[in-house]
Amino acid sequence: MNFRMTIPPHGPAAETRLRVRYAETDQMGVVYYANYLVWMEVARMDWCRARGVDYRRMEREEGIGLAVAEASCRYRSPARFDDEVAIRVWVEEANSRMVTFHYEMRVAGDDRLVATGETRHVFVDAAMRKARCPVRYREMFGMSGGAGA
Amino acid sequence: MNFRMTIPPHGPAAETRLRVRYAETDQMGVVYYANYLVWMEVARMDWCRARGVDYRRMEREEGIGLAVAEASCRYRSPARFDDEVAIRVWVEEANSRMVTFHYEMRVAGDDRLVATGETRHVFVDAAMRKARCPVRYREMFGMSGGAGA
Amino acid sequence: MNFRMTIPPHGPAAETRLRVRYAETDQMGVVYYANYLVWMEVARMDWCRARGVDYRRMEREEGIGLAVAEASCRYRSPARFDDEVAIRVWVEEANSRMVTFHYEMRVAGDDRLVATGETRHVFVDAAMRKARCPVRYREMFGMSGGAGA
Amino acid sequence: MNFRMTIPPHGPAAETRLRVRYAETDQMGVVYYANYLVWMEVARMDWCRARGVDYRRMEREEGIGLAVAEASCRYRSPARFDDEVAIRVWVEEANSRMVTFHYEMRVAGDDRLVATGETRHVFVDAAMRKARCPVRYREMFGMSGGAGA
Repeated sequence: MNFRMTIPPHGPAAETRLRVRYAETDQMGVVYYANYLVWMEVARMDWCRARGVDYRRMEREEGIGLAVAEASCRYRSPARFDDEVAIRVWVEEANSRMVTFHYEMRVAGDDRLVATGETRHVFVDAAMRKARCPVRYREMFGMSGGAGA
Repeated sequence: MNFRMTIPPHGPAAETRLRVRYAETDQMGVVYYANYLVWMEVARMDWCRARGVDYRRMEREEGIGLAVAEASCRYRSPARFDDEVAIRVWVEEANSRMVTFHYEMRVAGDDRLVATGETRHVFVDAAMRKARCPVRYREMFGMSGGAGA
Repeated sequence: MNFRMTIPPHGPAAETRLRVRYAETDQMGVVYYANYLVWMEVARMDWCRARGVDYRRMEREEGIGLAVAEASCRYRSPARFDDEVAIRVWVEEANSRMVTFHYEMRVAGDDRLVATGETRHVFVDAAMRKARCPVRYREMFGMSGGAGA
Repeated sequence: MNFRMTIPPHGPAAETRLRVRYAETDQMGVVYYANYLVWMEVARMDWCRARGVDYRRMEREEGIGLAVAEASCRYRSPARFDDEVAIRVWVEEANSRMVTFHYEMRVAGDDRLVATGETRHVFVDAAMRKARCPVRYREMFGMSGGAGA
């Protein structure tokens, strides 16, 4: 059993729902594999919004963004056109330099697991150089904070 | 017969070749319709490169880009995964404010027409306000030039 | 004034809402132009669902799909990441061979028009040959029906 | 030093070149992270073609496809619009049930590493049930073959 899935370390997981677009299918009749990473982004941004992190503003006003350093996805069973997909997302680890998100995607009706994934991000400035999370956003990301974080 | 197709007004048409990606198909087993607009962009950028317009540099150094004002596509027969597609592109009209490109897409092997399209663009600055084509690029776009253009 | 926009010929327009994904932006900082066609598809499928047309089932059980014959889009003002976009869609013309949809896309908050578009579709069978709309779906598409339609 | 990078187990790696499309960038000014998975697919299909595996035909005639079971990508430094990217791909492991590909993506000019990735695939039939690689394709994938494979 995965402890983190039951009691996520940084508060309850957020849930995003989306409906599979025709554009997201391929000729195999299922969702094309790269699109799951797009869904992770949608869920991640919803998570930010739900926690009070205005990502658009952070990029524009602070000049700080989250560059993806690593992404992975395990495909469990295919999602198909018109399926409603529920995505749970939570932060697994966060410090002032980086954040790791975990994702669980299910078909909403039958609760069938379609995929799980993980993305690791580093804070960067507008020139894509490594940066630190602006102080005002640290608590929202669940960082323990403090000057040394 | 289309005069412009035989003798394009602003020099010979450029040709771009690309192979249909699996990602570009949908569950109908053919290329998803929005992807033809991506191909038009690829052909348009190749046209620029072939004519000496470094689009990346124009955006970065002059702060001038080409925003799409209108796009249309007529789908003649479906392109499929792994097809090699040849795209001919030419400028139909150009002045210091706008450029119109025309496209003709064929399956390379059998010369079957898959689609035709058109995009109309306006020059904009970094804030997306209407702008004029930098003088040094006018000739490349086939603009008659002159102070009043 | 556009009569069709006020009183659509085939019943009230449906409205779809979606939030702009980061994936849908490009380096100009706005939504990449081909993605508006994806949004049109999302709105079209929502329209079908709202009218009782189960598109997935129509494809699977009847072997009939709607192939896009023509698409066009006029870009009025840019949509940006995180904008909530409201899309109104209605059928402009429909007979047993084809359907034409019209779209109007606005940023939900300030009602700013971002784009208008149109797609024309023909009914096709699984082999992409021209077909006719299954009788049971005709009323939903607003076809006047009748043996001669 | 990575032994597999020097002497891949199943013959020389194939190389694919592609130019970054405007569509592939996002508002951060770099390639959107999901698109690297699309590039992996392009490289994988080129690998198949170079080895004599006609993937389109395998899907159509044998009813056998390669479903992705797992994908991962490490982003090393950003690729940007108009960059020419060279992708090396090789099979790391293959048996009659599955194939694992490894990828290395570099900007062609300066040989800068932009990303590395891996995808694991299982053979499936048209109904997405697990299947075995058709015998005639086994050698091409570098499978040791034999009745028990």
